[in-house]
Amino acid sequence: MTELFEEQAPSAAVLLIGNELLSGRTQDSNLAYIASRMDGHGIRLLEARVIPDEPDGVINSINELRTRHTYLFTTGGIGPTHDDITADCVAKAFGVTLPHHPEATQRLLEYFAARDIEPNEDRLRMARIPEGASLVDNPVSAAPGFRMQNVFVFAGVPRIMQAMLDSVIPQLRGGAIMHSVTVACDLGEGSLASALRALQAQFSSLDIGSYPGLVQDEFRLSLVVRGTDQVALEQARLLLIDAIAQMGGKIL
Amino acid sequence: MTELFEEQAPSAAVLLIGNELLSGRTQDSNLAYIASRMDGHGIRLLEARVIPDEPDGVINSINELRTRHTYLFTTGGIGPTHDDITADCVAKAFGVTLPHHPEATQRLLEYFAARDIEPNEDRLRMARIPEGASLVDNPVSAAPGFRMQNVFVFAGVPRIMQAMLDSVIPQLRGGAIMHSVTVACDLGEGSLASALRALQAQFSSLDIGSYPGLVQDEFRLSLVVRGTDQVALEQARLLLIDAIAQMGGKIL
Repeated sequence: MTELFEEQAPSAAVLLIGNELLSGRTQDSNLAYIASRMDGHGIRLLEARVIPDEPDGVINSINELRTRHTYLFTTGGIGPTHDDITADCVAKAFGVTLPHHPEATQRLLEYFAARDIEPNEDRLRMARIPEGASLVDNPVSAAPGFRMQNVFVFAGVPRIMQAMLDSVIPQLRGGAIMHSVTVACDLGEGSLASALRALQAQFSSLDIGSYPGLVQDEFRLSLVVRGTDQVALEQARLLLIDAIAQMGGKIL
Repeated sequence: MTELFEEQAPSAAVLLIGNELLSGRTQDSNLAYIASRMDGHGIRLLEARVIPDEPDGVINSINELRTRHTYLFTTGGIGPTHDDITADCVAKAFGVTLPHHPEATQRLLEYFAARDIEPNEDRLRMARIPEGASLVDNPVSAAPGFRMQNVFVFAGVPRIMQAMLDSVIPQLRGGAIMHSVTVACDLGEGSLASALRALQAQFSSLDIGSYPGLVQDEFRLSLVVRGTDQVALEQARLLLIDAIAQMGGKIL
């Protein structure tokens, strides 16, 4: 529809791994965090998938998404329990072994020693890293994530995931930063649809979205214009405000 | 890994459509709602995808997911504006036309007349329904969703989506209801990993998940056992409590 994504902009996909996300037990918040970070770094997040802890599905999704996008970020499944299968699946997806990584083992042993935690076999499973991958720091609980080529493997716990993502941002090839402006008004979508269509046609490099909703039980239409060209963004914003006034709407 | 999903259980996928979900602007809550409803009706939700408002991707995802699962639920993209392309994409995915549906048109005209809203061309776009589809009621704002064979097309606004899903639940072929029990304790995952692995091996019909997290800044490990066999669930719950006690843990 729109030419939001320039030919050369790096792209990304997110793979959210975990039965709990498909049972309704856990409300994911990692996708929105990753999305906002990608915008700020000029990387276009083009798709996300949520899948259960099931090896074939995880392996296939990793291979599909890592070949289709510049970067793939996975969340979840890197703990010490039986349902933590992400490292195994990444190793299989790349056809490499999954040895205990010396540096990762060292970090875990130090973390456990300082807290009087027994470094049992299960806990040391978290030091298994696919051959050829580099570690991603975990400042919260030591057990590292890792980067295997263009695939970044993060924890599922939001606080850890966020720290891991923030630490690898400098490693990513960025593009033009995606900016956005929001104009909210009291008009129904149907009143503005025609003006929005014309505006979208006029500014093909921008992405114009229309999001009706309730804020404190009051109807509000949020119009979001996104793009890398800040001059065009400002022009579109002013024309949008004009269009709202012309239809008798009030800016909120 | 586990045999959570019986051979015959109906399965489902969710397709969340909208640029706002991939920009971080909007935090989706529809997936968790659909997931919990599926559990209660004995339908296994096996995957979800989040994709932008881009026709080719929407059409391909619809065709991929509707052939792979008993049911596909889509959310978003059925309003009156230029970025609302879901109905067009469903029609293309099924190779059918997209005429104005008489009953849908009637509902919209009545809704607009009662509210003194002008029934312009853009608003009446919401009455375009793929040939052969049946309407799904929208008790909030009239503009219907629809069902095309095994594909259910819902609004993105959570309140409307929820009403639409609830209204079609009786149309769905259910299976054995998925029950779940949660046991929370103060142990680290690594302390219980071995016991959990043994328990999962013993109860192959159940799915045992281990979710560490913070509740009011206190560490808490939530162990969730899911399955359709309530006797097995209760046995597993008791064994889990034993295992926690054996490791010196406290039930929270």
